[in-house]
Amino acid sequence: MSLPRFTVWGVTGVPEIGAGDDLVSHILQAVAAQEADDPEAALRDGDILVVTSKIVSKAEGRQFPAADREKVIAQDTVRVVAERVHPGGVTQIVETRHGLIMAAAGVDTSNVPDGIALRLPEDPDASARAMCAGLRERLGITLGLIITDTMGRPWRVGQTDVAIGAAGVMVTDDMRGGVDANGRPLQVTITVLADELAGATDLVKGKATGIPIAVVRGLGRLVTDVDAPGARTLVRSVDDDMFRFGSAEAYRLGYEAALAELRDGGQTTSKRVKQRQD
Amino acid sequence: MSLPRFTVWGVTGVPEIGAGDDLVSHILQAVAAQEADDPEAALRDGDILVVTSKIVSKAEGRQFPAADREKVIAQDTVRVVAERVHPGGVTQIVETRHGLIMAAAGVDTSNVPDGIALRLPEDPDASARAMCAGLRERLGITLGLIITDTMGRPWRVGQTDVAIGAAGVMVTDDMRGGVDANGRPLQVTITVLADELAGATDLVKGKATGIPIAVVRGLGRLVTDVDAPGARTLVRSVDDDMFRFGSAEAYRLGYEAALAELRDGGQTTSKRVKQRQD
Repeated sequence: MSLPRFTVWGVTGVPEIGAGDDLVSHILQAVAAQEADDPEAALRDGDILVVTSKIVSKAEGRQFPAADREKVIAQDTVRVVAERVHPGGVTQIVETRHGLIMAAAGVDTSNVPDGIALRLPEDPDASARAMCAGLRERLGITLGLIITDTMGRPWRVGQTDVAIGAAGVMVTDDMRGGVDANGRPLQVTITVLADELAGATDLVKGKATGIPIAVVRGLGRLVTDVDAPGARTLVRSVDDDMFRFGSAEAYRLGYEAALAELRDGGQTTSKRVKQRQD
Repeated sequence: MSLPRFTVWGVTGVPEIGAGDDLVSHILQAVAAQEADDPEAALRDGDILVVTSKIVSKAEGRQFPAADREKVIAQDTVRVVAERVHPGGVTQIVETRHGLIMAAAGVDTSNVPDGIALRLPEDPDASARAMCAGLRERLGITLGLIITDTMGRPWRVGQTDVAIGAAGVMVTDDMRGGVDANGRPLQVTITVLADELAGATDLVKGKATGIPIAVVRGLGRLVTDVDAPGARTLVRSVDDDMFRFGSAEAYRLGYEAALAELRDGGQTTSKRVKQRQD
């Protein structure tokens, strides 16, 4: 077809990944096996690989004893954003060291052996750059790579995959200053390509199917330098963040601030509360 | 390829849509024109059409004079979630009558003629059902249909498309109770397929290209009854919503509640503030 189009498929046959494994080699082997069945599966210039963070974590040795779960979550947490107690336990939404807002700091115990838990890669953009550079070198082609994780979101049910690491692919399409077909300024200004790619590939990767990698073909116009801005640039700045705390947490901060100001006469406490908000 | 895969392409040649237009006919004509160039473009059983809400609004006569913008935003707003004053004006995040949390209640002035603004469809799920049923009847095939709009989100920069209406397609994959490859409970429980489809197709639809419709082929397993639960079911319930207000707004509510309780001795005001939160 000569239409604007792209195709997404899952890379099957990736073996269970262990600490220290060369993930690039595993990917190339899995792709080669698919290629034997279907020449179309051979990677090409302009392809974008989308890789579940879980296998990156495994290769990077991010496994730890599940008994240490709370300790590791605390290590990976910069601050608690919101917390809710419910019959099943406590749901804590935190900001991770990567700037991601997610439950349990991304620590996961599904799709890992019993007694083991997994934390996110130390620096997902660096992981993406290393893998992207390795694949480009070994294949002699120019492709992009995204590392995904699964996140909930406010206001809407459920989870989707988003980009937590990226290399060699444009993470946003910044249309600020652009115009529509009538020459009028576009109100939507920054399309988040990397998250749209992450979500798209979740439709073939799936959590229950054991397919950790997908290929996107047909969007080669998004492929760029390995060192282009990564997924870290998708984290909103504190100044632009209107939802820095859960409503209950912010309400409580305001309530306590008023009480403290009245008790202390205002000056010092007001400053202290402001610091807690920053 | 016999791999798990799908393809996405844009439907080009959709004309400018006006109030009262039969959108189903316009879609069929545009598809037929593509089909003349490429037989693959003919719609088939299991295809999912993803349609930008803008053309649905236009067909449903949701245009209004741009001068009435503030009045219409107020009409479509259930409550203000967060507000921020900045050099360019005031950004107001509101909950619309549809349960969507978005800036300006989805009112848009891009890609419409000068002096005109556009509001969201009255009932996007109903619009989706009507279009899906019409297409199924006229083509004699079973396809799904999603209506999208563009939304910002907390914590992460930029915007992506999400589903605001859906018919004939599973909007979520509910894996609660499911297990991973090791037989352990899946921690991620509800994958939001409709939003992932919406984001995926934004990669070919694009705001500046004037392509308002995309087709997804290869995910026929997600196509279901026209009357299956729609996009309205993606709106999180009040009880599950930890981010019902912006942080500044919730902080102010807490602050005022404390002052009011101290002033009034507690009982009545505490009740009033609680009502404001509900």
